[in-house]
Amino acid sequence: MSGFRHVVMFKWADGTTTGQQEEVAARLAELPGLIPEIREYVMGADAGVSPGAYDFVVVADFADRDAFRVYRDHPAHRTVADELIAPITAERAVVQHER
Amino acid sequence: MSGFRHVVMFKWADGTTTGQQEEVAARLAELPGLIPEIREYVMGADAGVSPGAYDFVVVADFADRDAFRVYRDHPAHRTVADELIAPITAERAVVQHER
Repeated sequence: MSGFRHVVMFKWADGTTTGQQEEVAARLAELPGLIPEIREYVMGADAGVSPGAYDFVVVADFADRDAFRVYRDHPAHRTVADELIAPITAERAVVQHER
Repeated sequence: MSGFRHVVMFKWADGTTTGQQEEVAARLAELPGLIPEIREYVMGADAGVSPGAYDFVVVADFADRDAFRVYRDHPAHRTVADELIAPITAERAVVQHER
């Protein structure tokens, strides 16, 4: 499948509650319904198999780079990213690549 | 698609050559042919869209946690991970999750 993939991982800050993590997941899960540029959107909380893992990952697929930028800058995404995710993020790792 | 997903990102060490990076990608690309537990295996080098991104990501899908462990411990994977990837890795971020 050609396209453009965005992968982002988060390590939550100490004191982050399960409720905050669940709200992030719930609000992100709404985005495919709000942002048609999203082709596929798979996320998950770490299963605890590997020591030192990050806490959460999103793998999002788009038709191309421009579609990804629409997602990145979309108000619905920005709200979740800036108001829910940023305040509880200790570390963030991201890669975007062509497929 | 239910299953178990392994996502790993790497930031390469300073001085890592393009040739070393390409060899990692080429050797990883051989693994689905060597390790039948791999259901899907998508990787890519960062496209330079986001400042501060990591350099490379692998998203690998398995039937379940045990299948992932077979992959993780498989000699073909261990060789690439320990002999090719570890020596050129500055930072590594990983998440594994149920799907």
